[in-house]
Amino acid sequence: MSYLILVRHGQSRWNLENRFTGWVDVPLSEKGIKEAMDCAVELENVKIDVAFTSKLIRAQETLLLILAKQNKTGIFLHESDKRDKWSQHPSRFEENEIPIFSSDALNERFYGDLQGQNKQDAKDKFGEEQVFRWRRSYNVRPPSGESLKDTYERTIPYFKEVIVPQMENGKNVIVAAHGNSLRSVIKYIENISDEDIPKLELATGKPLFYSFENGELKKAE
Amino acid sequence: MSYLILVRHGQSRWNLENRFTGWVDVPLSEKGIKEAMDCAVELENVKIDVAFTSKLIRAQETLLLILAKQNKTGIFLHESDKRDKWSQHPSRFEENEIPIFSSDALNERFYGDLQGQNKQDAKDKFGEEQVFRWRRSYNVRPPSGESLKDTYERTIPYFKEVIVPQMENGKNVIVAAHGNSLRSVIKYIENISDEDIPKLELATGKPLFYSFENGELKKAE
Repeated sequence: MSYLILVRHGQSRWNLENRFTGWVDVPLSEKGIKEAMDCAVELENVKIDVAFTSKLIRAQETLLLILAKQNKTGIFLHESDKRDKWSQHPSRFEENEIPIFSSDALNERFYGDLQGQNKQDAKDKFGEEQVFRWRRSYNVRPPSGESLKDTYERTIPYFKEVIVPQMENGKNVIVAAHGNSLRSVIKYIENISDEDIPKLELATGKPLFYSFENGELKKAE
Repeated sequence: MSYLILVRHGQSRWNLENRFTGWVDVPLSEKGIKEAMDCAVELENVKIDVAFTSKLIRAQETLLLILAKQNKTGIFLHESDKRDKWSQHPSRFEENEIPIFSSDALNERFYGDLQGQNKQDAKDKFGEEQVFRWRRSYNVRPPSGESLKDTYERTIPYFKEVIVPQMENGKNVIVAAHGNSLRSVIKYIENISDEDIPKLELATGKPLFYSFENGELKKAE
């Protein structure tokens, strides 16, 4: 048996300012750093073998604060970087070293033209109902952006092909990512309907646990 | 007049373990996080307009802890990422937003085959004198790695072509980077000899200040 831990990053500077963030690469706010550190205390004695995160710094910061508290050395694998041959051989890693895979498959939903806009300004401009549809529908894309379904369709192949095999190998996995990439993962694991999944709210910095046993992921009680 | 602040990242997990790190992408240790936070307190009221860092997470973490304390929103510019159009227009940035440029021109010296090795093990294997030569000569390359001169030759063109023009535009600049990329910058600014520069020790998390006036950088008194 192994397990999966999902963590949504702590408050970012733009969560704080109520702006659509998407792929704009803003870091944690001071409160977000504190949330990540509280999460780190909660996870201090939980054994983690492999870590996954997005290409966005707010998710990476959250992960690194968790690993620092465990006295573990996370090492980012830059597999395309031919110079850093060392990190291309995780077999060299020692007991207290944890490979970190980062991929834009786990990035936040790409919000297109909404990125950078204040959510209230967007409501004033496009109407409250339209903004609600963009935020809380499964299929509806904002201009130039992704629907939650689009996010699902890039997140879940990565989850199945790269993350699940680690659990099949008995590794305990943490995924530090974003509201919508994690919604996608939870929809997949718990088989939540298209209608219900946009309503699922994930608290920042609160870990969710799943057990992996006999090829099956289940919410831990 | 504008100014330049140089900060070497806080202690990393491999500084702590006395290992050659180079481009292996290990994060700050808990002590390193604390050093960066202390540095943030020291810089809390220093106005920063533009930030530069390397592609390595330990330098980025240091920078982000400094900006968080200032209540500033650093935004990483991924200029090659055509999807994130928002961040490709820093003219959209607001007063409290700081563009962050990251480049491997500012990465640590690439240590080649020494990367991942404990420094004592390297001394046992290659002899103390040889390891000393690799670490403290300007021209000598470890196997498959860079000499400090090589690091200088990739760092300084970036410094002159990308960083200095920001100061010419009156911007106050912070550079959060590494022992050897910062040695290169200091050698360039202060015209330090090839012989002396390898001996210069930079404390982690202690900012160095330079003033930029009439096209000239000078150590601030």
